Amino acid sequence: MAFYCYLDPARTEQIREVFARALPEVEFLSGDIDDGSAARVRHLLCWQPPAQLETRFPALEIIFSSGAGVEQFLQSDLPAGLRIVRMTEPGLARMMQEYITLAVLSVFRQLPAYLDQQQKAMWQPLPQPSATRRRVGVMGLGYLGQAALAALALFGFPLAGWSRSEKHIAGVRCYHGDAGLDAFVAQTDILVCLLPLTTETEGLLNADFFARLPAGASVVLAGRGPQTDQDALIAALDSGHLASAFLDVTVPEPLPPAHPLWSHPKVILTPHIACVTDSHGAAEVLVDNFRRLARGEPLTGEIDRVRGY
Amino acid sequence: MAFYCYLDPARTEQIREVFARALPEVEFLSGDIDDGSAARVRHLLCWQPPAQLETRFPALEIIFSSGAGVEQFLQSDLPAGLRIVRMTEPGLARMMQEYITLAVLSVFRQLPAYLDQQQKAMWQPLPQPSATRRRVGVMGLGYLGQAALAALALFGFPLAGWSRSEKHIAGVRCYHGDAGLDAFVAQTDILVCLLPLTTETEGLLNADFFARLPAGASVVLAGRGPQTDQDALIAALDSGHLASAFLDVTVPEPLPPAHPLWSHPKVILTPHIACVTDSHGAAEVLVDNFRRLARGEPLTGEIDRVRGY
Repeated sequence: MAFYCYLDPARTEQIREVFARALPEVEFLSGDIDDGSAARVRHLLCWQPPAQLETRFPALEIIFSSGAGVEQFLQSDLPAGLRIVRMTEPGLARMMQEYITLAVLSVFRQLPAYLDQQQKAMWQPLPQPSATRRRVGVMGLGYLGQAALAALALFGFPLAGWSRSEKHIAGVRCYHGDAGLDAFVAQTDILVCLLPLTTETEGLLNADFFARLPAGASVVLAGRGPQTDQDALIAALDSGHLASAFLDVTVPEPLPPAHPLWSHPKVILTPHIACVTDSHGAAEVLVDNFRRLARGEPLTGEIDRVRGY
Repeated sequence: MAFYCYLDPARTEQIREVFARALPEVEFLSGDIDDGSAARVRHLLCWQPPAQLETRFPALEIIFSSGAGVEQFLQSDLPAGLRIVRMTEPGLARMMQEYITLAVLSVFRQLPAYLDQQQKAMWQPLPQPSATRRRVGVMGLGYLGQAALAALALFGFPLAGWSRSEKHIAGVRCYHGDAGLDAFVAQTDILVCLLPLTTETEGLLNADFFARLPAGASVVLAGRGPQTDQDALIAALDSGHLASAFLDVTVPEPLPPAHPLWSHPKVILTPHIACVTDSHGAAEVLVDNFRRLARGEPLTGEIDRVRGY
């Protein structure tokens, strides 16, 4: 039985190195493989799955995502019994802390407005509220959301969070489910979206959602592009209801050059770089999960395929 | 004996309110005052001092700065016996933490390059080093510098600091004096300048200084504009030796519209907004210092007029 690393050559080599040292007994396959090899694959690591997954990989038991997201598997037609595991490499949480802190402080300290003034060579200090009066709300309270909240706590923002199921986090006002969403949105001045992409979160950030945010709110979007109605976002910025947006995800990606988000004066846009998996760290997490498998323990990052996260 | 609040009307009213409640016995003067009133002033609060300070205010003993800096007093010809006190309002430290964290994370996560790409509608992720491999060095280890370091510690950057006199700060590699400057600069990938403006720091950040930073370094300048040779900074950015600059101070301020820093693709520029004194908080600090005076205790923020900080 074999492990198939279906990633680019550079990342594959880094993972091969760690496996050679830590799990020499595992047959490590990579690159293009023939049907005979494919038939032996029990564990697969990939971002987008290879073609003809069900027919070419009859022995496949577990598919490991190389990233924090698993929506690429959920949207495709995977065999029902296949287990899905997301990447929980600790570097991901650290990068998300950096990115969300950067994005929240940017919108809080009005960097989009100052950048717009910079383009006009305009020296104009703006009135600045205190952090204690800007309420930050994080949607998605998994390990990335909790890491982001831990970093934001340092700055004195009143913190809230929203998740599908009930959570309790010290120092964070937690809301959950459909019933909690309205109250959460209505009290959030800086909204951070870190939700996974599921059928329930697709299109969630629409015109109605933006209208329920307090006037002058800002949004930081680092979940997945299809969660946002981008036309509604632009309309809410143009009307003045929203002050600014800091985006790491769009629809589609890459965003086409003619798209109005690129040049919107209230928007800062980065090309999906909030979190990038470190191959070495990812390999260590995989090795740990292989050892858990051997001991019959629960895997780190395994997805509930009904909930989708 | 009187206290003279020489600030704009809005800030004066906020300070008057706090004084009326906490120190009703103090004669509170503001606005334009006649020579008779001026002659009774023993304590003055201002940013730029009023004209003819020595002749019109013969009883003046202490001059309180409304901001964190005091260079406006040191450069003018103040009577030798006059005591100078800088503002140490806690909100200043919190704002500096916000600003420096924002600026350091911006240059670390390559926001200037991504903004430049955004202007070109270019979707291009860039290789990103880990925070553990980017050494941050803070120049100026007073209460603002220490507050900034405390915030940066969260993100895992190796931290160093430089100050005129020797300091010891847990988790921070401390350098000091002329002898320590070269070693500090040579090991700093992200340089943060929070130094006060003195004859020794004026022009300190010149072509030679930038050349001694490691290739690919970035700078965050939030001390005072005259510390930097702006032509040398632009040359170091243009040559590729420096990756980016995040500036809150310039020479002159406001920066003239035609100045090349405004449109430089590697520069983010804000109009001296890192710290703004909150009038209410400032009044509380003043009241505390008045009580210290009455008890004969050392004042918070008093300047050594020989060192200049």
